[in-house]
Amino acid sequence: MAPEILFRRNAVRECLAAGRRRVLRLVVARDADLAAAQDILAEARRRGVPVVESDKKALNVAAHGEPHQGVLLEVGPYPYAGLEDILARAGERGEAPLVVLLDLVQDPRNVGALLRTAEAMGAHGIVIQERRGCEITPTVVTTSAGAAEHLLVAQVTNLVEAMRRLKKQAVWVFGLGLGAEAEPLEAVDLDRPLGLVIGNEGDGLRRLVRDECDLLVRLAMYGRVQSLNAAVAGSLALYAARAARRKAGRR
Amino acid sequence: MAPEILFRRNAVRECLAAGRRRVLRLVVARDADLAAAQDILAEARRRGVPVVESDKKALNVAAHGEPHQGVLLEVGPYPYAGLEDILARAGERGEAPLVVLLDLVQDPRNVGALLRTAEAMGAHGIVIQERRGCEITPTVVTTSAGAAEHLLVAQVTNLVEAMRRLKKQAVWVFGLGLGAEAEPLEAVDLDRPLGLVIGNEGDGLRRLVRDECDLLVRLAMYGRVQSLNAAVAGSLALYAARAARRKAGRR
Repeated sequence: MAPEILFRRNAVRECLAAGRRRVLRLVVARDADLAAAQDILAEARRRGVPVVESDKKALNVAAHGEPHQGVLLEVGPYPYAGLEDILARAGERGEAPLVVLLDLVQDPRNVGALLRTAEAMGAHGIVIQERRGCEITPTVVTTSAGAAEHLLVAQVTNLVEAMRRLKKQAVWVFGLGLGAEAEPLEAVDLDRPLGLVIGNEGDGLRRLVRDECDLLVRLAMYGRVQSLNAAVAGSLALYAARAARRKAGRR
Repeated sequence: MAPEILFRRNAVRECLAAGRRRVLRLVVARDADLAAAQDILAEARRRGVPVVESDKKALNVAAHGEPHQGVLLEVGPYPYAGLEDILARAGERGEAPLVVLLDLVQDPRNVGALLRTAEAMGAHGIVIQERRGCEITPTVVTTSAGAAEHLLVAQVTNLVEAMRRLKKQAVWVFGLGLGAEAEPLEAVDLDRPLGLVIGNEGDGLRRLVRDECDLLVRLAMYGRVQSLNAAVAGSLALYAARAARRKAGRR
């Protein structure tokens, strides 16, 4: 299988730091200013990762024309986790689970931004559906600023099934919704074992997913626009969930 | 000047609803399923906007390969406002100003997501710098879900100058920052006339902009990742600012 190619300093740095993937080699652009990448070069050397120079043009092609900051890392496939690993991580930290479930969120940049917020809020993992959802591609890793390399991401066959498994483990599953059937986020106690389900950009939550939620919550809106970007909406809910724990003195 | 081309239903719908731009014509894809665009077609007819059919391929080219949902609107340039218009809008609504200032935020999709949240939170306007920043392009309008068509956006020569003008009008200017020099967002009273400054994706706030802020505020972080996506961070601060007004019973 062809190696995956991570690009930009954050993604490369966090992949090396996390140490979860097989790393083939680090490619740096010839004649590039690598002053900001010195720690990456040092870490690659420390880990015995071969470092090669290449033309900037070759890097542009490998990064599909996206800005790469002169550094690429050739790596093995993304190391998906299982749902049980996510729950175990919460246990290891002595915390109630905080899990994010993506119901067919499509846009790799939205997924990346969500993963970045999830990691920053100390979430224990992400659940995505294998088919029709988004995979953890290099673009996701880059737009997550490398957070994807540290986060546990479980790829499941069926999201509703995963929701049921979480509920059996005493995790409350709340879906981000719109309209009158959803409770205002501020009126809900988020300081509990929690799975937050975030819907697709265009269609929101699928019917079966919505029906499986313990509760639908909505964000307060004050303008003409009736919904927010999926990554923004999910991030607002995650921040609120973390704030509820902080207020309860849990961290 | 060549017309601008807005695409996707939300952008087209909100542009027609706002009625602020010169509209040349609506282009719909031949043989496309336009069931979800019937209200747009009706509104175009009501306003006497010519409706023409075109090949799907021609629409793909006009939308630069981005998903367009079969509808394009050819329009005049984006109608920028002045800073005084933004303050006047707050006055008309009987509200303390809530303004968002973008310090060289580059990515059109981040700008679009921020505008979408700003409109949804009832912000009175956005301030961007003319040079080196992002303009309100069709991609911004689309990723804002059309919010840009309703929002007042002022393009200023110098962002620091605009901050000074806001401060002279008794508006507090808070910058989103990182690190120890910034106060935790939760520790700050956001229920006041407020300008929120959001920094560039890579470099944050410029030195001169940071120095002009009345206060730097930061979001609580709990992971390895040390910062959030610019659109996410700005949206979190906006949501908190609106929540502070709601708690104070102002709406």
